[in-house]
Amino acid sequence: MTEIIDDPMRFGVGARVTAAVMTDRYADVISKALQTTDPGGLVVQIGDVSSYVGGSEPELLRYLTDLAAAIASTGEHASLTIQLSRGCPGEVVCDLPGGAGPRPVDVPEGRQTGLYAAAEWSLYPLADEVRAGTVPDHMRDIYAAIDLAKENGTFRGSEHFVTRLEGDLGAVLATAVAGWVLVGSSVQHVTSHLTVSVNSPSHR
Amino acid sequence: MTEIIDDPMRFGVGARVTAAVMTDRYADVISKALQTTDPGGLVVQIGDVSSYVGGSEPELLRYLTDLAAAIASTGEHASLTIQLSRGCPGEVVCDLPGGAGPRPVDVPEGRQTGLYAAAEWSLYPLADEVRAGTVPDHMRDIYAAIDLAKENGTFRGSEHFVTRLEGDLGAVLATAVAGWVLVGSSVQHVTSHLTVSVNSPSHR
Repeated sequence: MTEIIDDPMRFGVGARVTAAVMTDRYADVISKALQTTDPGGLVVQIGDVSSYVGGSEPELLRYLTDLAAAIASTGEHASLTIQLSRGCPGEVVCDLPGGAGPRPVDVPEGRQTGLYAAAEWSLYPLADEVRAGTVPDHMRDIYAAIDLAKENGTFRGSEHFVTRLEGDLGAVLATAVAGWVLVGSSVQHVTSHLTVSVNSPSHR
Repeated sequence: MTEIIDDPMRFGVGARVTAAVMTDRYADVISKALQTTDPGGLVVQIGDVSSYVGGSEPELLRYLTDLAAAIASTGEHASLTIQLSRGCPGEVVCDLPGGAGPRPVDVPEGRQTGLYAAAEWSLYPLADEVRAGTVPDHMRDIYAAIDLAKENGTFRGSEHFVTRLEGDLGAVLATAVAGWVLVGSSVQHVTSHLTVSVNSPSHR
């Protein structure tokens, strides 16, 4: 199993991203941001509802930060919808059986962008195969993820179904990726959803 | 427990919705759609990242359909990000203990809107408290949800981490709500995420 765990693509590490830019010039802003963001070693597939990005956790965080910063730096109001997933390559049903993971990796470092963001974050440990003695203590890891958000200053409180994050766009993205990776240290299949608002008139 | 299960608010039945409209007139389009959509018996709280809507499943589907149709009927390209949740009122930690549910309800009927939508859909059964003999057979319910999407003609295939739906905007929303309710017949805490694209230039 080690070779599966060590290979981010075989372990199903990836993201889907929707960038919705609230201007008549949305197509130019989005296509320019996609063109100027270096895919590096990631697999990027552009779609009409969202784009898929597959690869390692630090590369994903770097890509998401660069893409979001390219959009936010235009000054246009935009909403980014990000889904993170690891431990369940495949589609409706995981190609990896339960017990193939978890995949422990270091929490990737983010970067400051100088741009403000507000976000709502959900984190889902999905125990696909539950066996006696193997149930992960996912609440412990979720608390650790919340503590991390408090430490890095992005935690703003809990709302219905989500945790509110605010701060530097790079720190907000790094918090979500960190929580996802932390919970993934004990659970094979972990997803996380983040809705990020930049340049909101509510904040100006 | 029956009174908790029977009360959608106490059971934590609700949604968060982000409407991102890709025009300079986004504020007008969104505020007009919110104003013209009847909240009925729902609790609606407008936010800067998303709006929270709480109440029964049929009311939620009716509200989401009316709101999305109000936006789509302007002809503007828009992306709607919808999170559905039931069985976990509260915030980071559920206020309801595991074992309080599930809450079996009839699958609500949607309505045709005459408007086309493409969407990406995820469905998460979250077993918060796993005890011997009580593990729900959630794969059975996920297959049932996919079968339902095939029956109503919205299923278009599986992609990384999501199921692609296409068709009438009302049928797409009804499919997601139906899957969420179906899985909720055996699992207390079920969430679902849907990204809906309307008036996309890719489709024209």
